Amino acid sequence: MPARPSEFELIERLFVPLATDSGAFGLADDACVLPEDALCDVVATTDGLVEGIHFLAGDPGNLIAKKTLRVNLSDLAAKGAKPFGYLLALSLPERIGMDWLEEFARGLKEDQAAFTVSLLGGDTTATPGPLTLVVTAFGHVPRGQMIRRSGAKPGDGVYVSGTVGDAGAGLEVLTQGATAPRRSSAAPAEPSREARLARAQYLIERYRLPSPRLALGQALRGVATAALDVSDGLVADLGHIAEVSGVRIVLEAERIPLSPALRAFWGASTEAIVRAATAGDDYEIAFTAPSVPAALAAEGGVPVTRIGRVEAGVGVVLTDSGGREIPVPRAGFRHF
Amino acid sequence: MPARPSEFELIERLFVPLATDSGAFGLADDACVLPEDALCDVVATTDGLVEGIHFLAGDPGNLIAKKTLRVNLSDLAAKGAKPFGYLLALSLPERIGMDWLEEFARGLKEDQAAFTVSLLGGDTTATPGPLTLVVTAFGHVPRGQMIRRSGAKPGDGVYVSGTVGDAGAGLEVLTQGATAPRRSSAAPAEPSREARLARAQYLIERYRLPSPRLALGQALRGVATAALDVSDGLVADLGHIAEVSGVRIVLEAERIPLSPALRAFWGASTEAIVRAATAGDDYEIAFTAPSVPAALAAEGGVPVTRIGRVEAGVGVVLTDSGGREIPVPRAGFRHF
Repeated sequence: MPARPSEFELIERLFVPLATDSGAFGLADDACVLPEDALCDVVATTDGLVEGIHFLAGDPGNLIAKKTLRVNLSDLAAKGAKPFGYLLALSLPERIGMDWLEEFARGLKEDQAAFTVSLLGGDTTATPGPLTLVVTAFGHVPRGQMIRRSGAKPGDGVYVSGTVGDAGAGLEVLTQGATAPRRSSAAPAEPSREARLARAQYLIERYRLPSPRLALGQALRGVATAALDVSDGLVADLGHIAEVSGVRIVLEAERIPLSPALRAFWGASTEAIVRAATAGDDYEIAFTAPSVPAALAAEGGVPVTRIGRVEAGVGVVLTDSGGREIPVPRAGFRHF
Repeated sequence: MPARPSEFELIERLFVPLATDSGAFGLADDACVLPEDALCDVVATTDGLVEGIHFLAGDPGNLIAKKTLRVNLSDLAAKGAKPFGYLLALSLPERIGMDWLEEFARGLKEDQAAFTVSLLGGDTTATPGPLTLVVTAFGHVPRGQMIRRSGAKPGDGVYVSGTVGDAGAGLEVLTQGATAPRRSSAAPAEPSREARLARAQYLIERYRLPSPRLALGQALRGVATAALDVSDGLVADLGHIAEVSGVRIVLEAERIPLSPALRAFWGASTEAIVRAATAGDDYEIAFTAPSVPAALAAEGGVPVTRIGRVEAGVGVVLTDSGGREIPVPRAGFRHF
């Protein structure tokens, strides 16, 4: 068992410095008081990450910290909320030592600065199982303005931020190696070793370190009729909007934005697009809107691409340039 | 692997019916909106339970559900807050089947009715490890009136609700059997088998099903100078109040309230009192106050016992009837 101080020393050394909000009471209490804003609703969300499921055992502690926080901030982003704080429940296996925990706390500190949030409280327990982290994140949204999943209407356009599929490819690189990717027959000729490594690095980074689209989400208040963050795969997640809104969503495969790295890795065939649209961990925002302001991408700090339309009906379909439906073999990641 | 529906069917069948608050949006969204009360602060707390650490693998699902919820409600109780809702993050091993989950949801439903709270959202994931449950619970407290740990002052009395040590004895019965307890030499003569079983049942129940002292906590607003719920052991937890308040707490061993079942099981020797004062899982409220209103026990629905006093100094000491310090070998439960 690696050297590790007691539970209370650990909290004192690593976590108290992160509890910068006055409502956290320096973690000296059993509970926190959420900061209030008379004009805002408090939006809350919770997401847990389990070693071996959501991250790999060898992933660095600072990146695991950031990923756990960011997947929750991504949920808040898609709801149009501005995050202010979070609670952290840690289940630690014995083998996790102080070095790892210091890395972990450093990652949290960096992201707290990047996203202006404070640790508000938490819980630390031992576990005989895998490292398990649960964050509950909080944000403010002007009263009644949380962007729901339920407002998509026939005639709306369907949009997504950034590019999709990168994280799925990054996970493939991590688990299968970058040098022998499962390639589409339409993939381009093999590039130099340096180019392959750079591409692999980019895709791995996209898997390990999602970018919550907070500025975009806040810019979508009053613009988007429905929104969510893409975590289980674009097609699967848009399926939630279709279901809850009672509409049909038609996606045009050729419009789905793929990064240059992904095109170099998987190619740009229909097969590659289907894989990208069903891969998990993108943490982009997918949304519907009658139209979007020209300045949206600039305000949101990330490109936004129109990828389809909302119609009357049910379900999500992917179509080719001739309007024919492309079969989607696996709709998205499910835990079970 | 037992029969279990998909993640989404599971949520639909078991958890959507529990999301009664409008801010939960029927779990159809990624986030919830916390109900607001213009005169109140929102108090939040999170506590996780891990199979094999906080409960036993064979414990019934409905009791595990209730314990997970109640240990969080107990934190809110000690802060003077009135709970209104909670988020639930579940990490489920494969072997957990639908029957177990239905039991689990039934437990939540019963406790939601008992404590007037709503499921507000959550997260469900698979795990290769033990069943792990994290609840984040929310309550309202009149603005600025959350009872802290930091207000104890020399001259205050120290109080505890109910009785302590029962849950620790219950765990001992569960793990070592009721018929061959580790007995104090001062334990009374062996009672009938029926009496032993009834006593064991009571102690097990106290371990499996804590009673959050919500009415008492709310009655302590403006009365208690510091409070917390006793989860790691009376002496250890009062140590937190002593540390954060910058005071010394002197406990009189003979005043520490033990249940008749515990006295029958462990006896009433000094050794038994020390064990009771260092056993975990009591979930009673320990607090300090200059004095308590005569009606407090009636208002709180549970007896309150004065067990000591606050002095200038540091730490917690247990004293005998002659004022001599009793050594406390193990201050309380620590996860590591």
